[in-house]
Amino acid sequence: MSSPTRKQIKREQLLDYGVQALMNQGYHGTGLKEVLDFVNIPKGSFYNYFDNKEQFAAEAVGHYIEPFIQRLTGHLQNPELDGLGVLKRYYAELIVEVELADYKGGCLLGNLIGEVGDTSEICRCSLLTTVERYARLQESALVRGQQEGTVRTDRSAKSMADLLLNGWQGALLRMKIQRSTAPLEDCCSTLLDDYFKA
Amino acid sequence: MSSPTRKQIKREQLLDYGVQALMNQGYHGTGLKEVLDFVNIPKGSFYNYFDNKEQFAAEAVGHYIEPFIQRLTGHLQNPELDGLGVLKRYYAELIVEVELADYKGGCLLGNLIGEVGDTSEICRCSLLTTVERYARLQESALVRGQQEGTVRTDRSAKSMADLLLNGWQGALLRMKIQRSTAPLEDCCSTLLDDYFKA
Repeated sequence: MSSPTRKQIKREQLLDYGVQALMNQGYHGTGLKEVLDFVNIPKGSFYNYFDNKEQFAAEAVGHYIEPFIQRLTGHLQNPELDGLGVLKRYYAELIVEVELADYKGGCLLGNLIGEVGDTSEICRCSLLTTVERYARLQESALVRGQQEGTVRTDRSAKSMADLLLNGWQGALLRMKIQRSTAPLEDCCSTLLDDYFKA
Repeated sequence: MSSPTRKQIKREQLLDYGVQALMNQGYHGTGLKEVLDFVNIPKGSFYNYFDNKEQFAAEAVGHYIEPFIQRLTGHLQNPELDGLGVLKRYYAELIVEVELADYKGGCLLGNLIGEVGDTSEICRCSLLTTVERYARLQESALVRGQQEGTVRTDRSAKSMADLLLNGWQGALLRMKIQRSTAPLEDCCSTLLDDYFKA
């Protein structure tokens, strides 16, 4: 594998900083000039990397979710965890981290859906693809739990994965204003420790 | 009761338009100039109405929720509805309306929490007060359902009301990108027709 080119490195830096800026300031609050200045790229060169701001945000969405997908995949490959245990471990880790982050940020997917999910078609498509990819990975953990006999089988794993993801998104919003992990803990205990159980 | 003053009427118009602008363009995407132009108020006069943009958005949050509170209160006062029936009727109406609105907008509370719930303390406080007021009204319907024997009593009405509100917020986000009411229907049927039942 050849080493990344300068352009690839700069592109990665733009997306790294873009994720942070979009998380802290939202889509409309994020200026391209600020992003370019941070990465030290002249304004005219932005279009060598992305078609426009919408395309940049759409790609930042995929860039943002990647570490979450990798971590969840790692738990799915851990032979010590059963299907339900994968999700419990994963969400317990996230709860610790949002507390360390002082309840700030939440989820970039949820934040951007709220702000531009209905006004930017490019962002909507990226958000939809990304959320579906993330949901289907959680579904695979629930399918495994069903096969192991710990997860109920009278509801589809797909429907339960969607409920979990949506419930978590709503709980993250509540966490931000309450400045407390209680909504997240309630969401996980209700679904993973009670409603989903066989 | 005296008729509203010109200042009160203008203030109401500012908040009406503010709710629409914040819903469509988010906090950072909403310019005060645009709001003032629409209501025909010179820029310098804005501060006769609100301290600043944050204060304006914080008041728009309360202005936005008022019709929802009134409608839910109306259902609570309807002698033909039991506690669980109040919530089922209320959410069924909202589902019809989001479909008519072509899945746009979602909930201003959720959108603003995502965008500025962690960066504007003035907005956070207003969002917290408003969400709590709305949640406690839903709690009162669940308390009635518990007294009527249709809602489970092994969980507190408060905890169930919070789950319902948070689950609905997450489902609204998903609705926006899927352009479908399915996530909303799943949220209501899971909680109101199954999990909350006695």
